[in-house]
Amino acid sequence: MTALKSALPEVDMLTEVADMARFVSGVRGETGKAAAVLRPESSKEMVQAVCALNALGIRYHTQGGNTGLVGASIPDATGEQVVISTERLKDVFEVDLENRSLRVSAGFHLSEVNERLEPHGLFFPIDLGSDPQIGGMIATNTGGGRFLRYGDMRQQVLGLALITSAGEAVKLRGPVRKANTGTDWMQLAIGSASDFGIITEAVLNIEPIPRQQATALIVPKDEAAILPLLQALERLAGPMLSAFEFMSHAAMEAAFAHIPTLRNPFANGVLPQIALLVELSRPNEPAAWETDLDEVLQQILMAIWEGEDVAIEDALFGRADTMWAMRHGLSEGVRCTGKLYAFDLGFRRQDVLAFRAAMQVDLTQQFPDVQICDFGHVGDGGLHFNLVVDPARHSATFEEELRDWVVENAVDRFGASFSAEHGIGPKNQKYFDKYGQTQPFPIN
Amino acid sequence: MTALKSALPEVDMLTEVADMARFVSGVRGETGKAAAVLRPESSKEMVQAVCALNALGIRYHTQGGNTGLVGASIPDATGEQVVISTERLKDVFEVDLENRSLRVSAGFHLSEVNERLEPHGLFFPIDLGSDPQIGGMIATNTGGGRFLRYGDMRQQVLGLALITSAGEAVKLRGPVRKANTGTDWMQLAIGSASDFGIITEAVLNIEPIPRQQATALIVPKDEAAILPLLQALERLAGPMLSAFEFMSHAAMEAAFAHIPTLRNPFANGVLPQIALLVELSRPNEPAAWETDLDEVLQQILMAIWEGEDVAIEDALFGRADTMWAMRHGLSEGVRCTGKLYAFDLGFRRQDVLAFRAAMQVDLTQQFPDVQICDFGHVGDGGLHFNLVVDPARHSATFEEELRDWVVENAVDRFGASFSAEHGIGPKNQKYFDKYGQTQPFPIN
Repeated sequence: MTALKSALPEVDMLTEVADMARFVSGVRGETGKAAAVLRPESSKEMVQAVCALNALGIRYHTQGGNTGLVGASIPDATGEQVVISTERLKDVFEVDLENRSLRVSAGFHLSEVNERLEPHGLFFPIDLGSDPQIGGMIATNTGGGRFLRYGDMRQQVLGLALITSAGEAVKLRGPVRKANTGTDWMQLAIGSASDFGIITEAVLNIEPIPRQQATALIVPKDEAAILPLLQALERLAGPMLSAFEFMSHAAMEAAFAHIPTLRNPFANGVLPQIALLVELSRPNEPAAWETDLDEVLQQILMAIWEGEDVAIEDALFGRADTMWAMRHGLSEGVRCTGKLYAFDLGFRRQDVLAFRAAMQVDLTQQFPDVQICDFGHVGDGGLHFNLVVDPARHSATFEEELRDWVVENAVDRFGASFSAEHGIGPKNQKYFDKYGQTQPFPIN
Repeated sequence: MTALKSALPEVDMLTEVADMARFVSGVRGETGKAAAVLRPESSKEMVQAVCALNALGIRYHTQGGNTGLVGASIPDATGEQVVISTERLKDVFEVDLENRSLRVSAGFHLSEVNERLEPHGLFFPIDLGSDPQIGGMIATNTGGGRFLRYGDMRQQVLGLALITSAGEAVKLRGPVRKANTGTDWMQLAIGSASDFGIITEAVLNIEPIPRQQATALIVPKDEAAILPLLQALERLAGPMLSAFEFMSHAAMEAAFAHIPTLRNPFANGVLPQIALLVELSRPNEPAAWETDLDEVLQQILMAIWEGEDVAIEDALFGRADTMWAMRHGLSEGVRCTGKLYAFDLGFRRQDVLAFRAAMQVDLTQQFPDVQICDFGHVGDGGLHFNLVVDPARHSATFEEELRDWVVENAVDRFGASFSAEHGIGPKNQKYFDKYGQTQPFPIN
């Protein structure tokens, strides 16, 4: 690494094991090994770094916020790879209020972007439980909890700068929204990890901060009521509908059992089989020409209850933060319950429920000691299908057998994507090799 | 062509000059020549057609609705090319209500799609003045008048089937919205004409039909008031804002002069320097919990007038169809005024106005006998920059000189896209060769 240091006198470089520790371990306990960590501070330094690594024949691995869940953000175990971290890539932050866009370096964290946009009444609308960097969000095309309203990263990225593996700086598109001048090569870099280059900068669409939000917990009479409810809400609330989240009894139970600060909002604390978190949003401050948004949500639900053929058992209104705390507590709760095998599956919206129903029968039969603790985004077809097993039952062989069985069922029977939001990475490589990326639909 | 007919006994084929006439002339008067016209009725027939053409060494040109404005939809003048028309590709039309998606053959016209979706309360939200086929809309990534609300085709396409130049049928993605399993190759085919294959089928996102719309014509005090007004509307109306269209005095004058059925809505018929057509939409039928949408629009405009630093001179409310008739009459009106040189430019939103201002000075100086008759979509940065000249002044040399000068100014000084919505085609090839497709933004 002395040669690398000499080749890059100006680029920040870590080589102490203690300094490199946080770059070689993933959030789900994965571990790797790094020869060094480079932290370029500009696209120019990134070009220098890539060229020097190429010249020395050193393999490298790009890392953003290291918040990924499929093991893709850390280096391999050989100790031969240099980690290129984008965390110091923060030289550009230019808000364009009139164009409603932001030119930003890849190293800014989502939370930092939103803090800096807040004084302008704007925000970046991809909503995640973790706090990744912008570059990593583009490289994995993250979606998140408000996909229903704002779509995924692809929908927000207007332009990119990236450094190719040959060390060339390439600009693709820019702040212009309408530009149909042939193949949009920029799209290749979105959701492709760093296969086409290291993303150093982006131009992003930004949105007005929602100033009003109304939230309700809805208990449907049964699973068959969920999609009609979603459809009725889309028809009655339109783009005000910003979340439609599904929570299973088991996942809620896990959250309340393990997170003592969570408040149980249900009558007598009795958890329903299924609860739905529904949220409406409006960008403006409450205005005289509008009915209060909480009132609107109540009236819409009342109209659905009375007029449409949707079986709602109960609807609880209350503090949004309490409800979202419960929703966001599901992951942690489930993780505390036992050994967790987590799946991040994408379906047609109706198949989220069909798949669950099938699993409740077939999985329970095939693997009787496994508990399903799922939740997800029915509005966009994303399902966090979590299986919890007794730690004593866990083994690598059992996990693999179970994982293969679940993915096979999801893909072969329901045309699912084996990775809705998290990308491929070592954890999904096997399924990518087997299924590729296309969900089956027949060609006539 | 006898050999081709023998190779494709089942595929519809035209060879009479009269039958082929509508396939070889474009809407802006371009002409080409075809050896034959093939009209496959399924992806399977399309495979056969491409394979037969390859085997016989015959060049071909794919055509959708033939509504394009850059000469890209008709064959060249050699008479060697066979036209492959997608107009009979109509074997698939499957509405998925729960997933809110549509699987559709490429040959359906936009109007046909919407007619068939209407009974379900759904529509395909790309709004265009012409009536292209779905395949062509994907191949050119059309945007249209409600881009502000629904984005472009890319935002609506969930899956594609295409036939490669080798005659292979390829499926890319499908009805699943969240699927991050590596590089999204499907994106390459969107907006790339048929460079990566002939699109035969798509899975599209569809939306609830807007049941309420409120429209106003706004006269800003000056150009400086336009962007603050747009920003205030985005903050106050959020996703209800579905159009923000800009119309110049000259374009409106041309429309009223040449289209006698148009009603002039302005006081005493005096046209302002600039008018803005603003539209709000809601998907639901009018409901008890909401203020009437016309009232909402009036109140929002009143709030802007009183509270914000936006100089509005006048706001006219009235029948939406009258206002949109005026907006849609601009093209025809301008065309009747003289020889038209039309440009379809994409800018950052603020640069639409900056470019106009610059042109009013510089173009008028450089080309004093040219009249600017522009209009466009300020909300998304699209500008239909139309120049009208005395037909006696027109010559191919003059047109080219003028065109080059305008594009040079737009691209070099304002970082514009020389084709916002229409693609490349023979008309823009020269600018593509010169500028490529990237709008300049610096790399730090």
